[in-house]
Amino acid sequence: MLETIEWMTDSRGDFVRMIDQRLLPAQQVFVDCRTYVEVADAIKTMVIRGAPAIGVAAAMGVALGVQHNADFETVCQTLAATRPTAVNLFWAIDRMRKLHALLTTAEHATAARLINQEHATGARLVNEAQQIRLDDINICKAIGRHGAALVPDGKTVLTHCNAGALATAGYGTALGVIRAAIESGKNIDVFADETRPFLQGARLTAWELQQDGIPTTVITDNMAGHFLQSGRIGCVVVGADRIASNGDVANKIGTYSVAVLAKENGVPFYVAAPVSTFDLTLHSGDQIPIEQRPREEVTHVFGVPIAPENIGVQNPAFDVTPARYISAIICENGVARAPFKQSLAVLALKASLAKV
Amino acid sequence: MLETIEWMTDSRGDFVRMIDQRLLPAQQVFVDCRTYVEVADAIKTMVIRGAPAIGVAAAMGVALGVQHNADFETVCQTLAATRPTAVNLFWAIDRMRKLHALLTTAEHATAARLINQEHATGARLVNEAQQIRLDDINICKAIGRHGAALVPDGKTVLTHCNAGALATAGYGTALGVIRAAIESGKNIDVFADETRPFLQGARLTAWELQQDGIPTTVITDNMAGHFLQSGRIGCVVVGADRIASNGDVANKIGTYSVAVLAKENGVPFYVAAPVSTFDLTLHSGDQIPIEQRPREEVTHVFGVPIAPENIGVQNPAFDVTPARYISAIICENGVARAPFKQSLAVLALKASLAKV
Repeated sequence: MLETIEWMTDSRGDFVRMIDQRLLPAQQVFVDCRTYVEVADAIKTMVIRGAPAIGVAAAMGVALGVQHNADFETVCQTLAATRPTAVNLFWAIDRMRKLHALLTTAEHATAARLINQEHATGARLVNEAQQIRLDDINICKAIGRHGAALVPDGKTVLTHCNAGALATAGYGTALGVIRAAIESGKNIDVFADETRPFLQGARLTAWELQQDGIPTTVITDNMAGHFLQSGRIGCVVVGADRIASNGDVANKIGTYSVAVLAKENGVPFYVAAPVSTFDLTLHSGDQIPIEQRPREEVTHVFGVPIAPENIGVQNPAFDVTPARYISAIICENGVARAPFKQSLAVLALKASLAKV
Repeated sequence: MLETIEWMTDSRGDFVRMIDQRLLPAQQVFVDCRTYVEVADAIKTMVIRGAPAIGVAAAMGVALGVQHNADFETVCQTLAATRPTAVNLFWAIDRMRKLHALLTTAEHATAARLINQEHATGARLVNEAQQIRLDDINICKAIGRHGAALVPDGKTVLTHCNAGALATAGYGTALGVIRAAIESGKNIDVFADETRPFLQGARLTAWELQQDGIPTTVITDNMAGHFLQSGRIGCVVVGADRIASNGDVANKIGTYSVAVLAKENGVPFYVAAPVSTFDLTLHSGDQIPIEQRPREEVTHVFGVPIAPENIGVQNPAFDVTPARYISAIICENGVARAPFKQSLAVLALKASLAKV
């Protein structure tokens, strides 16, 4: 399996290497970002995507900016302005910001002056970014362990978009649950919604699972209802870009539709995401900003026009699934069920305590 | 507006001209079919599609076959074997078959011998096929008149696939309702689901409505739920490929999902189709055969691969929407509401009586 994102060093210095997710699976091309601006561009243009993965990328971007003595606030603001919906981005920048603040206090400065402080701050932030990446892989494994038990044996799992190794530092959230279910001996196969317009399901999920030898079937998004109605789907598992305190979930456009269709057909609908995706400052999903992406993503497929010129287009990249459609939210600390206000708060607290 | 299908004559004889719907809107290419086999191929490969339009094409195919003295049963069976779901195809072939049987009875034969019977039979069947085409345009206009009143003013109409002029001999069924609502002075705009895999919404509906100056926005199929949830959609109007006696409707894959999402959000869901789409011999939609189309329609867009090689694919071309999700079925004889068993039977009877 290719790495989604790595911190690397060569004779020219440190850089961040990402697999270009716009070109998969037809081409396997790596993009090397040597400045924080290049990292920001890579996030914005979706060289890298997926809430946990862009969190890792943003942290690495901050580290590059500090290494190059760029203005710290400018670095953070530039990276934060790339994409508005996934809260992991802001969470990761915030984690880097807190460490930076600590390292640049007067007390630290005094102590560090003796051991070349500038270098120490940069190195500590590089370490922190790499730690966020390593943490994410372990978090995905824990999500997988908690989720595996929920997956019905002998049936098909439906997933939407790509919440896999490519959307994280590795293993995946929703696909982590699928991988863990298979590792635990369950006999399942996967239906992957192609997930227009960016085709993360057809291009990324299908490719990832095929590489792991997991039987996978690509369907167009509008077939999901038909197969949920058919009885062959045992459960739905998806990722998340932001989860409000009441359990409303922002995720890739189309998630809401799948959730409604799952409920209508009595199929459990699971969300798999790290605690860093929780935004407990929000009362409900209505407060989550929804990114609008360029019209060309809808009107063109790999540069080929599929609609008349000058036609109206809408391209919201995410939608909000109200908590009442969600059977459970699986995170690294366990499984939250309704009422989510309490269960999410408990699992988030568990996360803080674990760090102490 | 280009004609979907026409009967034409040149120095080489009669032929059927169709606009190639696989290439629209980028290219406007006509396909001329000079034999019934060419018509059958055009239906199978979706040069022409849409339940009423393929009914007209099949009738014209029968007429070409008779003109060329092909075995009548072979002609009918070849055309009937092209696509399994839309009942209009079988209805049109049956209408041609009944006239052919009448024209070839002993009594007719005796009378016709005096006036060159072979020529008379062929000409009468050509007339019948052309009449089916003309009838279809008038039927669409009547559907539009009945449906226009149901469309809420000042809101957006959502449609799926293409049930427009291109799916019929002209004017359209679902798009006929939209056109008639606008002609009646209503201020509406249209959201068109792109309708993967064949993209009838993005390519055909968007193009048709743009030509008529009707404000149209293309969305991916998985955005429909988000906009139904948003409150801007006043109603959904779609076509149909076959309607069972209990009101269950087979239509383009994805229709079921839109219907469930409309009901969940309190948005009326209307089906617009001619009586020739009714199949009152079926108790329910479970009995409707669902066509499986080639995998390449899902894995490639205009020849460009969008999924890994050898990945599993499903490609059901239609789904069945249970009657409980349908607010009303609009046909040329009026508007049917639940219980559909009675209302559809009454409207179908009205159709038979109108012909007497």
